[in-house]
Order: sequence, then structure tokens, then C-alpha cells
Amino acid sequence: MKEIKVGIIGFGTVGAGTADCLLKHEDLIRTRTGATVRLTKIADLDITTDRGVKVPEGVLTTDAMELIRECDIVVELVGGTTVAKKFMEEALRQGKIVVTANKALLAKYGNEIFRIAAENNSTVHYEASVGGGIPIIKSLREGFVGNKINRMYGILNGTCNYILTRMELEQLGFEEVLADAQRLGYAEANPSLDIDGHDTAHKAAILASLAYGEWLGVDRVFVEGIRELTLTDIHCADEFGYKIKLLAIIKQNADEQLEVRVHPTLVPKTSSIASISGVFNGVMVNGDFVGDTLFCGRGAGREATASAVVGDIVDAALDLVNGVPCRLPAFREGKNFSTMVDVADFVTKCYMRIPVADKPGVLGKVATLLSQHGISVAKLMQTSTDASGNVEIIILTHETKEGRISEAVKLLADMPEVTDKVHVIRMEDL
Amino acid sequence: MKEIKVGIIGFGTVGAGTADCLLKHEDLIRTRTGATVRLTKIADLDITTDRGVKVPEGVLTTDAMELIRECDIVVELVGGTTVAKKFMEEALRQGKIVVTANKALLAKYGNEIFRIAAENNSTVHYEASVGGGIPIIKSLREGFVGNKINRMYGILNGTCNYILTRMELEQLGFEEVLADAQRLGYAEANPSLDIDGHDTAHKAAILASLAYGEWLGVDRVFVEGIRELTLTDIHCADEFGYKIKLLAIIKQNADEQLEVRVHPTLVPKTSSIASISGVFNGVMVNGDFVGDTLFCGRGAGREATASAVVGDIVDAALDLVNGVPCRLPAFREGKNFSTMVDVADFVTKCYMRIPVADKPGVLGKVATLLSQHGISVAKLMQTSTDASGNVEIIILTHETKEGRISEAVKLLADMPEVTDKVHVIRMEDL
Repeated sequence: MKEIKVGIIGFGTVGAGTADCLLKHEDLIRTRTGATVRLTKIADLDITTDRGVKVPEGVLTTDAMELIRECDIVVELVGGTTVAKKFMEEALRQGKIVVTANKALLAKYGNEIFRIAAENNSTVHYEASVGGGIPIIKSLREGFVGNKINRMYGILNGTCNYILTRMELEQLGFEEVLADAQRLGYAEANPSLDIDGHDTAHKAAILASLAYGEWLGVDRVFVEGIRELTLTDIHCADEFGYKIKLLAIIKQNADEQLEVRVHPTLVPKTSSIASISGVFNGVMVNGDFVGDTLFCGRGAGREATASAVVGDIVDAALDLVNGVPCRLPAFREGKNFSTMVDVADFVTKCYMRIPVADKPGVLGKVATLLSQHGISVAKLMQTSTDASGNVEIIILTHETKEGRISEAVKLLADMPEVTDKVHVIRMEDL
Repeated sequence: MKEIKVGIIGFGTVGAGTADCLLKHEDLIRTRTGATVRLTKIADLDITTDRGVKVPEGVLTTDAMELIRECDIVVELVGGTTVAKKFMEEALRQGKIVVTANKALLAKYGNEIFRIAAENNSTVHYEASVGGGIPIIKSLREGFVGNKINRMYGILNGTCNYILTRMELEQLGFEEVLADAQRLGYAEANPSLDIDGHDTAHKAAILASLAYGEWLGVDRVFVEGIRELTLTDIHCADEFGYKIKLLAIIKQNADEQLEVRVHPTLVPKTSSIASISGVFNGVMVNGDFVGDTLFCGRGAGREATASAVVGDIVDAALDLVNGVPCRLPAFREGKNFSTMVDVADFVTKCYMRIPVADKPGVLGKVATLLSQHGISVAKLMQTSTDASGNVEIIILTHETKEGRISEAVKLLADMPEVTDKVHVIRMEDL
């Protein structure tokens, strides 16, 4: 039986988990698939630190180029968009199959990378780039291949979901939970990639590309993070029957225009996606035949990510054993996303938090202004007066175009009775 | 480009949905996969009734053998275990790839069918046999291929879940909901296959086989249905913080002994699986690397099942285009399930409902009897006295061996104060 040689570049957390899984389950994988998948090389600049994995002699190397030459499958777990890109391109040019978890690299350079793969009759597998251990990419590309995808909603960043869950359950403010999450290792020292929504946007770009064709650049994803959420928002959302989640939303409208956005979102408490808490990820896919489906699992971490990476390695190995390196084309040609929905044309219900002086007539002025912009109020509540004699008016609107909301927010900011920034959170009924 | 010819035997609900999907999305599938998947023949005894699908001329036939001869992929949607088996075997003997949704046939004759497939260098795809539109089989075989599966829990029968959900939400008795479900078409005129748990057992056998190797016969699955559940059970479970679901439970213990059982189960209200309601299905898989994952979606119906069938057809078509008919072996060899856990050795917490005469001292006698059998009571409540002066004692036990419970139930039945059958429902903490 042909033995498939696997090399891992990057012996960090996920690299160590992947090595562990391949070493521990080589026999299991052989009995299940008939393929012998052998961990042959691991390349890293540091090959002396103990990662808690007993690696056979001769496997560790500091020479990534040697690894690429010697292996059939090159697993890129370096991260980042510089060295990782160099290794990936070199591997593809040598006709090696690449497995990666690098969403940032794919979201930024996907088109270029898949072109190089195609030119060299090779391919890139990237299940671990979205949703950690959840096989969402395989499900989307293969399981749902007979479906026009109507919409997807994803909780795709464990750090954000962990912070929002703790704010909600422990009634703590954003900054406090973030600091604790950093202390516990659930958030990076520089948390911007996660909490400002960029990581989720990378993943949204990948899911949208898979569902609708050509590779979508991350710059076409509308992004807003969770920094500005307050405990008041969480409380008021709860009062109205909602939870707040950082959601990736991918939709195609009747005119085949695409909408890809990442932002804090009010979702009904009773929806399945609202029940996904802590570091868990979840993706809801609606296809025209399958209807609504939901996938949940750990979105990050050594073992869960390794599970996805190994799934890809075995897929690639089966293809190599059978002499079919590119069984599934990466993306279809001839379709582009020139027709993205303009941000001003997003249609959503909105939650608005308007800090105002607690004076008679203010509510009336606010309501009149909204109505003049065609914004219809569905529900309204007012918080109790704070130390400075201010209150916050909380409004849920009916469906409105984003453009009208922005316009109204601008005018509200100019009202003398409005004491601070107006916050808007979009809503989805799912 | 090679065109792959697909034939559907059985133009019923799922057959019509599959034809609809293939016809509607032939272009979409081609752009996504590079394969042309052409619906070439549909065989049924009745080819005149309108199924709401516009079928091209020359596709309908009453001759299934002609279909098998002419097509590359034979989709068996006849159902049952007689004619369906004949067609499937004939197709495999001619080296055709078979796609099926027939869990009863696979659960009963899986070993034989996979042997015939292997002898003829062909294979059988069966995603639609478990969990409707949820790609659970693909996820288990491919996505989680690097995991030792620790345990699985599944809500696999939409009819049962629909009945239990309505009993719970509308406070209606079992018989009443069943009658209504039959009227609405959610339950068969003869509902035994669903409500007595056999359909779930077929699916459990398939999932267990996939996770642990050799094909497991359905007769090795412990089965109990939902007929005997009362509104009292649903109420009392709720009081204790649980919901009742018909669950398929598949576990491997530390000695690699396998436990496959289907029965009504108390699950914590807060668990994700408890939130799967109505006709939806859900499967929780715990793997040693991936941890807990959950998949939900429509478990039955024309469109959702068609989505799974078409996923399989496209998979098979990609294999055929690449000249690799059996990319993934069906099951590994040399492993058998001789070491199943004995029913008497199942270890679970239990819910017991004991109808007794409302007399002083009865509770003490019951508690003493349980304690003499090593059954430790965790929680206890008593219903109010009914018209005949009887009450029901409801007990939640700590973990106990099934054998002890059965023994205790036998002795309780002999107590003069026990007025009716003692009911036991197993519990899972998930």
C-alpha cells in the first residue's frame, strides 16, 4: 500500500495537536480509509521546546524547504500572511497538496493561491480555517452541493462569543471581561483581530466564496466589532427577548446581489443560534432544498482544530492514493461579485440606544425625527435616570434601509437633548 | 466532459424531490464540481400520476432493469427490504454505484450488500438514510476520520420528536397527539416503525457501524419506544429540569465494549439536544479530538432528503469522472461487536414513576426496597391524589445498573400498595 508522507510547517499549538492526532490515530485512519498517512517531517525554527508530543526521531527539522521537497502533503500551520504564503506557494509549485488553517491568508490572497494551485494541478484544503472542528466547509462544498444557498449565519469567533456570554451571564462590562479573558488566555494581548470582527470577516469571506463562486476579498465584507457594546445593550436586548451575538451574515437577494456583513446582532433568545455560548462556534445554513441546518462545535483550540486539519490531510491522502489530486475544483469561474448590496441598502430591523437629557418632550422629538425618515418604531423603552439626570431611550425599529438609519443618527447627534453617541445594533429574526 | 447518467428507481415523495433537485440544479452542480450529472431515467410502476416535477421526455420508464443497464448511478428510492434489495443487488452486480435512503434495508442486510458491492468494485452511498438533510454520515466518515468516537446521541425520528414536542408544549396526551399527527401526515397510519423506536434503531445501527467498524445488525440495538409516556412524565421531568426525547445512544466504554440503545430519555433542559424540537433531527458526536459537536436539520421530507441524496449522487459522480468508484472503503475488516454491553449492565440514572395507594408508610416501603437493591435516590416527588385515592411517586435515582432497576421493578410490582405498572425512563446528562 502506498504511504502518504505528511509534513507540518509550524510546531505551535495547532501543529502539536495535529502531530499528536496523526501519531495517535495512524492505525485507526488506515483501517477506516485504507490509506497509510505517515507524519514524516515537522519544521519549525524552534525544535527543542517540549510541546507535549512524543515525536519519532528524524521528524523534527528547521528546514521547511527540505520538508516541502520530501512530503506529499504540506500542512501550513505557521499563520500570518508573509512566510506562510511563501511556503504555501513553494509547496504548490512543487505540486504538493497544501492543508491550512490560515483564514487570514486565504481571505487576503485566496484568488492568487488558488490560481497557483490550479496551474500546478494541485489544491489547497482549508476546513480548519472556519469553525474549528466543525466540518462546515466539507458540508457546504459536498453535502449541500445540490442546494442554492439562500443564507448563512455564523458565530465564528470563540473569543467574542466567550466575552458576550460572560457579559450576559455575569453582568460584567466589556472591558472587565476582556481583561479577564486575556488573563485566562481566551483573548490575545492585542485583541483587535478578534473583537473588532476582522477574524470573523475572514471566515465570512471564505464561506461566501464557497457558497457563491469566485473568491471574495475580505475588503468587500462589512465589519463592525463588539467594543462598543454595553451592559445596558445586553439588558435591554434581554428585556425585548433577544441576545446579542457577533454574527457573520451572508445572504443573496432575489436579484442575486450578495450581502456579507459582520456585526453585533440581536437574535431572538429562542433561536438555536442564541443558545451557542462560550467558546463554541455555530453556523446556520439555509439551502433551497435542505432548509435550515445548524452545526455547532469548538471553534478553536489545539484538539478541535487538529481534528479538522487531520480530516483534510486524510481527504488529500485518499485523493493522492487514487491519483486524483484535485477531485473538487476550488471555485467556479466566470462569476463575480460586482453586484454587492450597498451598505446604505442593507435592510434590517434595528436596536437604537439614544442617550438623552431626561426632559419633557424629548421622546416626542426623537420619535418625530425617526418617523420623518420613514423609520417605524416597533418597541420602545427608557432606562431610569442616571446621576447626571440623563436617560437612554431604547428603540426597536421595523425593517428599514441602513441609509435612513445613518441619516437619522446624524441628525439625532445634532439634537441638543442628545447627550452622547447614538448606538445602533442590527437585528436578525433568523 | 464526461456526462454521468443517473437513474432513480421509485418516483415517490423522495424520488420526486431528487428529480426536482437534479433538474433544477444541473448547471449549478456543473459549475461547482466540473461534473455533468444528468437525470437519465426514472423507473416506477406508476408513470402517469403527476408528481409536480416536469420530467423531460423519455426519462420515465416502468422498466427498472433497463434503467440499471443504462445508468452509471442507480438511486434506489423504492423503500422496503424486498424489491429494493433485488434492484440494489442487480445494480451492484453490474458495477453500478448505488445511492439509497433505505435505512431498514441497510440495517438488516448491510453486511451482505457491502460484500456484493466490494466483489463488484462498486459501492453504496447512504447519506439520506440517517438525519435527512444533515450531512452526518459524511461528517462522521470524513470530517471526523481522525477521531476515536467516544459517544453519539441522536434525535433521529421526526415523528417521535414532533409528538413529544406537542405533548410538552400543548399539554396533550400521547394518543391525542398521535391521532392528530396521523391526520396531518406527520405519522403513518401504522405508526409502529416510528413510535416503537425501530426506525431510530435502524439509524443507530448505521451510525454505530460507521463509528466502530463492522456492520452492526439492528437486532443488537436495544429498543424501547414512546408509547407508554404520559403527560405526568413530561410534567415531572420538567419539574426536575429535564425534557424527554427519544434518543439513540451509542457509546464505547473503557474496555471497548459497545452500547447501542434507543429509548425515551430524560435530558437536561439546558442541553443543546433538548432544544431540538418538532420534526427536526439532531446528532451530537463526541470525538477524542474534536470534542462535542452538534448537527441539526430537517430529518425527513421531500426536499431535505433529496438534498442528501443529491449530495451522494454528486460524490459518486465525481468518483466516476475520476475513475475511482470506491474512494472510501465501506467498513474496516477484522473487528466485530461480540463484546456488546449486556442490557443488565447498562449504567444510567433513572426516572421511576410508581403508582401507589396514598397510605401512610408506602413511601418508606418503596424507599427501603430501592435501597436494599443498591439504588440510591437523588430526588423524589409525589403527585396529588387522584379520584381513586392513588398517587404516583416520582423518583430520580443516582447512577445504577439496569439489572438492579429491573429487579426492583419486579419486586415493586408485587407490593400490594403498588396499584399499577411501574414506569422507568433512563436519563443522560449529555
